[in-house]
Amino acid sequence: MKRARVAYAGAIHPASEYHGQLQLADGRIVNEQDVVWLPPVEPRTVFALGLNYADHAKELAFKSPDEPLAFLKGPNTFIGHRGQTRRPADAAYMHYECELAVVIGKKAKNIKKEEAFKYVSGYTIANDYAIRDYLENYYRPNLKVKNRDTCTPIGPWLVDAEDIPDPSNLAIKTYVNGKLTQQGNTKDMIFGIADLIEYFSSFMTLSPNDIILTGTPEGLADTAVGDEIITEIEGIGKLVSTIVGDDVFTENGDRPHLKIHK
Amino acid sequence: MKRARVAYAGAIHPASEYHGQLQLADGRIVNEQDVVWLPPVEPRTVFALGLNYADHAKELAFKSPDEPLAFLKGPNTFIGHRGQTRRPADAAYMHYECELAVVIGKKAKNIKKEEAFKYVSGYTIANDYAIRDYLENYYRPNLKVKNRDTCTPIGPWLVDAEDIPDPSNLAIKTYVNGKLTQQGNTKDMIFGIADLIEYFSSFMTLSPNDIILTGTPEGLADTAVGDEIITEIEGIGKLVSTIVGDDVFTENGDRPHLKIHK
Repeated sequence: MKRARVAYAGAIHPASEYHGQLQLADGRIVNEQDVVWLPPVEPRTVFALGLNYADHAKELAFKSPDEPLAFLKGPNTFIGHRGQTRRPADAAYMHYECELAVVIGKKAKNIKKEEAFKYVSGYTIANDYAIRDYLENYYRPNLKVKNRDTCTPIGPWLVDAEDIPDPSNLAIKTYVNGKLTQQGNTKDMIFGIADLIEYFSSFMTLSPNDIILTGTPEGLADTAVGDEIITEIEGIGKLVSTIVGDDVFTENGDRPHLKIHK
Repeated sequence: MKRARVAYAGAIHPASEYHGQLQLADGRIVNEQDVVWLPPVEPRTVFALGLNYADHAKELAFKSPDEPLAFLKGPNTFIGHRGQTRRPADAAYMHYECELAVVIGKKAKNIKKEEAFKYVSGYTIANDYAIRDYLENYYRPNLKVKNRDTCTPIGPWLVDAEDIPDPSNLAIKTYVNGKLTQQGNTKDMIFGIADLIEYFSSFMTLSPNDIILTGTPEGLADTAVGDEIITEIEGIGKLVSTIVGDDVFTENGDRPHLKIHK
């Protein structure tokens, strides 16, 4: 099943895909243009991986890491499908990163990789935007690079794990204004999903709605205000986001002009 | 006012200090030995600072940073006053870090430092234990160093901001089994509280119950299983924690033998 969380008619609703349409948990079929898509789960601890595809590490002229390079992301960063990501005016290079997002379904501690998939509830797509010129250290990016408000669209669907028999062989694509710019496959991860669950759970208790963003393959490019970015993963869906400038934000952080992109 | 969250008689209660005693929000006065102390707030985004005291940076033979070196901590890391922190058998050097913890009280975006203290609800104490031999990079410690389960006792009290007129001049002390081992003062922070709020809020929206752990001064030392560590900050309180070994944890992460230290 494909599950979503949407805001519609004054309330937040769990929703799912029903014969290609969007159905609220109360049974209503709604037009997907009429809802605001939210992240399909409310993220708890969110792990992001640096340099987890060998081709991408090579693209950046780094050697592949010996153990997972991971950092955490705060809840302020996440927005849903068809959301707006802010590109600050002083950024010289802000690139997308299409990533398979693995959602944890139950408490997990000291899990061996052979058992790891039992702890996955499903999969979604993240676009983990980064501002390259703010970066000091690729191995562990600082908060200004990876923890800005709105910098990580996620969704649209949480696809049940049972519906994705082989998450380690899914095509990854990103389109900028309709043009294909990034192509990869989850089979090229350096540390696979089961490796990552074994690693994190060896020293941290994983909990439901923890999310692992598994890294991105090569093919990154700068983005501009007004661009529509589609990050697509085979069998999971297409996540749309739009780049907006500082002008739609007021100085105190309120966003009176915020419009949801349709 | 000094506020706490405690578990007592089957429920979790807000509590406060009342003439030197512990009073539940429902009016009951309870013996502090009879409660389980929880973190005084449920942490949302938690920032930790690396090398934010010049003496500590010098102790580690590093130069002071030019901008805040910050990383995030997950909710799995936090335990309350009189809690147990696990020292894994393979750790060669696990040290305490007494830190002033600044709790955010309202949404904050693009806040100038002159206004920063208006966004602080109060202060508490954190002991941000670290395992030094797991460290690859002091400037941005990896998750194994700083995000282990139970590695950050916090509490006992959230002290209202209005009761701490000058948080930038508070004595910091740590005692290991009664012996004073760490001494410092919050006046020696490289980036002060207002600087940090200005910095983080320049690219992230801060929210109530976000917490900034402001770093630790020099005077770190290894700890051993069985040690009782008291981290004390002037006007805020004394936070007690005990180091326990792997033997009190079973392999699947359940803790049937867990006892609250009294």
